[in-house]
Amino acid sequence: MAWQTALTELFGIECPVVSAPMGGSAGGVLATAVSRGGGLGMVGGGGSEPDWLERELSLVTAETTRPWGVGFLSWADDVDAVVRALAFRPSAVMLSFGDPKPLAAPVRDAGVPLIVQVTTLAEAEQALDAGADVLVAQGTEAGGHGGGRSVLPFVPAVVDAAGATPVLAAGGIADGRGVAAALCLGAAGALMGTRFQASREALVPAEVLKALVEGGSEDTERSRVLDIARGARWPARYTARTLRNAFLDRWRDREGELAGDTAARAEYRTAVARGEIPAVPVWAGEALDLINDIDSATDIVAQVSAEAAEALTAARRALTAA
Amino acid sequence: MAWQTALTELFGIECPVVSAPMGGSAGGVLATAVSRGGGLGMVGGGGSEPDWLERELSLVTAETTRPWGVGFLSWADDVDAVVRALAFRPSAVMLSFGDPKPLAAPVRDAGVPLIVQVTTLAEAEQALDAGADVLVAQGTEAGGHGGGRSVLPFVPAVVDAAGATPVLAAGGIADGRGVAAALCLGAAGALMGTRFQASREALVPAEVLKALVEGGSEDTERSRVLDIARGARWPARYTARTLRNAFLDRWRDREGELAGDTAARAEYRTAVARGEIPAVPVWAGEALDLINDIDSATDIVAQVSAEAAEALTAARRALTAA
Repeated sequence: MAWQTALTELFGIECPVVSAPMGGSAGGVLATAVSRGGGLGMVGGGGSEPDWLERELSLVTAETTRPWGVGFLSWADDVDAVVRALAFRPSAVMLSFGDPKPLAAPVRDAGVPLIVQVTTLAEAEQALDAGADVLVAQGTEAGGHGGGRSVLPFVPAVVDAAGATPVLAAGGIADGRGVAAALCLGAAGALMGTRFQASREALVPAEVLKALVEGGSEDTERSRVLDIARGARWPARYTARTLRNAFLDRWRDREGELAGDTAARAEYRTAVARGEIPAVPVWAGEALDLINDIDSATDIVAQVSAEAAEALTAARRALTAA
Repeated sequence: MAWQTALTELFGIECPVVSAPMGGSAGGVLATAVSRGGGLGMVGGGGSEPDWLERELSLVTAETTRPWGVGFLSWADDVDAVVRALAFRPSAVMLSFGDPKPLAAPVRDAGVPLIVQVTTLAEAEQALDAGADVLVAQGTEAGGHGGGRSVLPFVPAVVDAAGATPVLAAGGIADGRGVAAALCLGAAGALMGTRFQASREALVPAEVLKALVEGGSEDTERSRVLDIARGARWPARYTARTLRNAFLDRWRDREGELAGDTAARAEYRTAVARGEIPAVPVWAGEALDLINDIDSATDIVAQVSAEAAEALTAARRALTAA
């Protein structure tokens, strides 16, 4: 299956699929596997230690000559991290969450394509101002951190605002039907997170993989509770979609109270230490209903590509006459 | 433009587009205009007075012999209202929000196709048990009342659960790109509300039409605040997406407090009486970014159909080889 969109053209890849640069879990092996499948594999450099990032980027460059990229957090990472990553000659750098301008500068200076993920129309304008070569319109369906827009109406609005700049759809996409839908919305491809989190190559413990396969979309929820509990300094406008757990259930809609309650946060740490709740929240998107197995990321790209072709062909067939 | 999907086949219509049966605003003239355009026009019978409904249904039957339908609220309407509507020989009856079984009985007895709108997978199962001939998978993007799922991941999950029963996508769809995306997700068509609310034939005051054209998606919000303020008895799980207003801004996240505060609710009525906030909340979906004019509903159907064909054809063209 081969595709030709502004995304595949820009990076010289076969499939309009990008893996999300998920902090901690999207290492070099996952990025390589996605790129081998014909997509654009991304390493999650956001908030990582220099040693971790260097090791994971070395893995990619040792394993593949295909295009790959690396992602950072605009609100959290510093220019040095980006400069260090650029030394590995990625095909793309992606910036998410916050003003992209400071970290964009070295990327543009290096002549490397800049991908900026956005969660509102104002962020889309900011990304275009920062010189983004590709926008990712991320919906509230996404696992992990994000905003409040939904993909289906958000993507065409960003496409209309972006002019000639290609837009990818992110959030709630885990199979080829979602990729085909993204293309119809005017996107040049799709970025998928949870689908690759639930893959053999993700740096994810076995019990998390099990929880992702067994869980459904309606077991996920957007909240700040777990970030507050674990002392993560995420900007308040980016909530995180995770599987629910007992602590989240207890503190739902009481974020302010939790922030001021030292004892409650100590209780959280105790529950983590006892193994009652996971130390890292189980990031999971609303596409979880569509994820029922753990596969290799290379095979996932191939399968999604085949499904997308089938979905588009079937939908196009519904059009009987002009 | 002619289409062939399970929806167009079932009702003998040309376009896979259904107008939402919006209470108060989707009268006979709007339903007729949608059906004339080749879609399935719906009258919003939910919570209506018998005289209003009889007048609007008479308008449809006087004006068109094309297929049309009528919608009711499962939690609010009684069997008598459905039976009265069935006397006008609609092509479809749609039930939304709550257990569909009680109102489904007379529809099935009359041999009229039953459409049931659902907002969770559990509701989808309930609708199939009630004998629904068509499911509408409604996302949180929708204007007015609804739930918390997003269309892009919800529709394929409902399609997988529904087997041979056709599924429509609802929420956040206002142009042909959204309809094309819905078909790729496996839906047999799309149900659109806000796009038809912002039409010449909707029973909507001029100032509301103006607010819809000028407003954007990010000016809308899901909340229970306005329902509580106006004493509407909607089940708590169905919040309403509306344009924001000063009262909503003041009481956001304080629903419990508002419910117990008689003076605040009196204040709301005073603000309405003074014209400071509209008596009826301005229902508006997240597709509002995509709505920039007021057109005739007949022309909207034709335009959406042409855009959907274009979007599908362009997306299919991205597939270069098998």
